[in-house]
Amino acid sequence: MKKILITGISGFVGGHFVHYLTTHHHDLEIHGISRSKPAWDFVPAVPELTRNSHFHLADLMDIPKIKSLIVEIQPDYIVHLAAQSSVAESWKTPVDSFMNNTNIFLNIIDTVRLNDFTARVLSVGSSEQYGIVSENDLPLHEKSLLYPANPYAVARVAQEYLAKIYAQGYDLDICCTRSFNHCGPGQTDRFVVSAIVKQFVKVARGIQKPVINIGNGAIVRDFVDVHDVIEAYDLLLTKGKKGEVYNICSGQGRAIKDIVTMCSKMLDIKVEVHQEQSQIRPIDNPRIIGSYKKIQRDLGWEPTTPFEQSLRSIYTYWDQRVEVELKTHPENTL
Amino acid sequence: MKKILITGISGFVGGHFVHYLTTHHHDLEIHGISRSKPAWDFVPAVPELTRNSHFHLADLMDIPKIKSLIVEIQPDYIVHLAAQSSVAESWKTPVDSFMNNTNIFLNIIDTVRLNDFTARVLSVGSSEQYGIVSENDLPLHEKSLLYPANPYAVARVAQEYLAKIYAQGYDLDICCTRSFNHCGPGQTDRFVVSAIVKQFVKVARGIQKPVINIGNGAIVRDFVDVHDVIEAYDLLLTKGKKGEVYNICSGQGRAIKDIVTMCSKMLDIKVEVHQEQSQIRPIDNPRIIGSYKKIQRDLGWEPTTPFEQSLRSIYTYWDQRVEVELKTHPENTL
Repeated sequence: MKKILITGISGFVGGHFVHYLTTHHHDLEIHGISRSKPAWDFVPAVPELTRNSHFHLADLMDIPKIKSLIVEIQPDYIVHLAAQSSVAESWKTPVDSFMNNTNIFLNIIDTVRLNDFTARVLSVGSSEQYGIVSENDLPLHEKSLLYPANPYAVARVAQEYLAKIYAQGYDLDICCTRSFNHCGPGQTDRFVVSAIVKQFVKVARGIQKPVINIGNGAIVRDFVDVHDVIEAYDLLLTKGKKGEVYNICSGQGRAIKDIVTMCSKMLDIKVEVHQEQSQIRPIDNPRIIGSYKKIQRDLGWEPTTPFEQSLRSIYTYWDQRVEVELKTHPENTL
Repeated sequence: MKKILITGISGFVGGHFVHYLTTHHHDLEIHGISRSKPAWDFVPAVPELTRNSHFHLADLMDIPKIKSLIVEIQPDYIVHLAAQSSVAESWKTPVDSFMNNTNIFLNIIDTVRLNDFTARVLSVGSSEQYGIVSENDLPLHEKSLLYPANPYAVARVAQEYLAKIYAQGYDLDICCTRSFNHCGPGQTDRFVVSAIVKQFVKVARGIQKPVINIGNGAIVRDFVDVHDVIEAYDLLLTKGKKGEVYNICSGQGRAIKDIVTMCSKMLDIKVEVHQEQSQIRPIDNPRIIGSYKKIQRDLGWEPTTPFEQSLRSIYTYWDQRVEVELKTHPENTL
C-alpha cells in the first residue's frame, strides 16, 4: 500500500484533500502532520476514523521531529500544504512567514535527499510569485517572469527555486505548483472571498449593518475553487513532470468589489461597500489572472466549479457556522 | 562619529574592507561581528589596534545576540559580508548554506525594521544569481534574468528579493550588489584562483609535482580583484540608490584552464593540468561575464587592478604562507 504524507493536514486545503483521497483512493495510507488536530467543520473528520489514516501532532519548526517522522513513515508521496499563506500576515511577520514557508519545505526535501527516498514531492507555490505585472503579461503562464512583491511571495519563489535545484541537482522527484487564490467552504475569513461571504451571512441574519468591509476593491484576482485545486494536486502527484511548474487557476480575473456585487445580486441583499484603509497593503499587485493551458495540455486538468457555486457553498458554510456561534454567544447580535 | 557594522569581519573581504576603511575614513567607528577573532595574515590586524574599532565575538545564528548587538550599536551603515560563499559547499550542505546566507540577512534587516533605524544596509549578492545563461545574454547586466542553478545561488536570489521587499515595502535604506568572483591575497584555497596559485607556489618550491589540479577547466568566470570590490562597497554605502542592484565585476571572462596557462607563463613554470572529476559540480554555469556599466555610469566605479597584478599578489601571499607552513611542518616537502 502506497503512503502519502501531508503537512498542514488540519488546514483548509488539507481537509478537502484528505476527504478527496479517502473517497477516491482506497489503496492509500494517509499520514498527516500538523500543529493541531484536524477539527474540520466543512468535510467529515476522516483521519481518526479510517484504518488507513494516521495523524501526527508536530510543529513543523521542530526539525528533528519532522525528520524522524519522515524517516519512520517513508512516504511515497509528500504534499507540503503547511504554510503561512496570508500576504497581509507576511507583511506583519516577514521572518515567521519566510521560516514557515521556505525553511520548513527545505528541511523536508533535504530529509528526502539525505535518506535517498524516491518520494514524489509536491511543492505548492502561489500566483503571488508573479508579483507586479502589466496588462500585457496577462494571463500569466509558467514562463512569465517572477517579480515577487511581498514577503510571502519571496518565500514562495525561494521555495520553488529550491525545489528545482533539488530536482535537477540531486535528482529528487519534485514537481511544483503556482496555485492561484483559493476559495471554498472552510477557508478562514482572513481571506477575501470568505470574509465577504461571511459578512453577507451576517447582514442576512441582521447581525451586521448592510455595509461590506473590504480592502482595495479594485484589485483583480483569479479565484479557483478548492475542489478543483485538490483534483489538480492529485493528478500532479502521479502524472506531473519532475522539476516542472504548473499554474492552477480558473483563468478568470475578478475584482474584489465585483465579488461583492455578485453576492449582492445572488442573495438579493443590497449593501454598501466600505474600503478599509488599514487593510490596504504596502505594495499590491493590481491584477493577477492565470493561464492553466500547461496543466490542461499535459494532464487534462481544467477547473469545473462555477464561481457562483463556490460562493453558494461558502455561504452555506458560514451560515451554519454563524448559526452555531449565535447559539453559543447570543449577545453577538446587533 | 558615524558607525559601521560589518558582519563576517574576520573573513577575506572583511579584512580588506577594514583595512581600506581605517586608511580612508578616519571619522568612522567600525564594529565587526564574527564567530572567530580576526587573524588576517594579508592585511594589518586593525580592529584591536585602533581606538575606533570594536570586535564582537558572536555566532550570527544566535539571533537574540545579534539583535541586541545591533540595537546596542545603532549603526549608520551595515555591511553583511558573513556568508557561506562556496558553491561547492552549498551542494554538500544546502540547508546550512541557505540558513547562513538568507536567514541571517533576513534577521538583520528585520531588526533594523523593528527598531526603526535609518541604517544604510549593503546586501552583498553574487553573480551566481544569474545562473545558466546563453552566449547571447553576455555580458550580464542587472536587468538580465535570474536562473539560479545551485543552492548558494538560490540563497542569494532570496536575499536580494527580501532586500528589495524591505526597501520598497518598509522603506528600509538597502542597496544590493551582485558581486562576481573575487580574487586576491588572503582568499582560502577553496576558491579556484587561490587554489591554482597556491599549487604553483608548491610546484616552484618543489613540494608538488608540476601538475595543477582543477575542476572543470572550460568554465568561464569574471574575476574581480578584492581591492576593486571594496572600493565599490565603500561607494555604494554612501552613493548607491536605495532598492537598486549593482553588478561588481571586471567585465572580462576567463576560463579556469587559461588562468593556469597565464600563471605558467608569468612564473615560467611548465605544468600539466589535471581535471578532478570529484570537483565537477552537479549543475554548473558554463560562462559568466558581467557588465559594470550601471555602477560606472551612476557612481563612477570601474575595476582598476589588472588580473596579472592580482595573480602576483596572491602568489606573494601563498609564498609567505607556504614558507611559514614549511617551517612549522618541514615533513610536508615532497
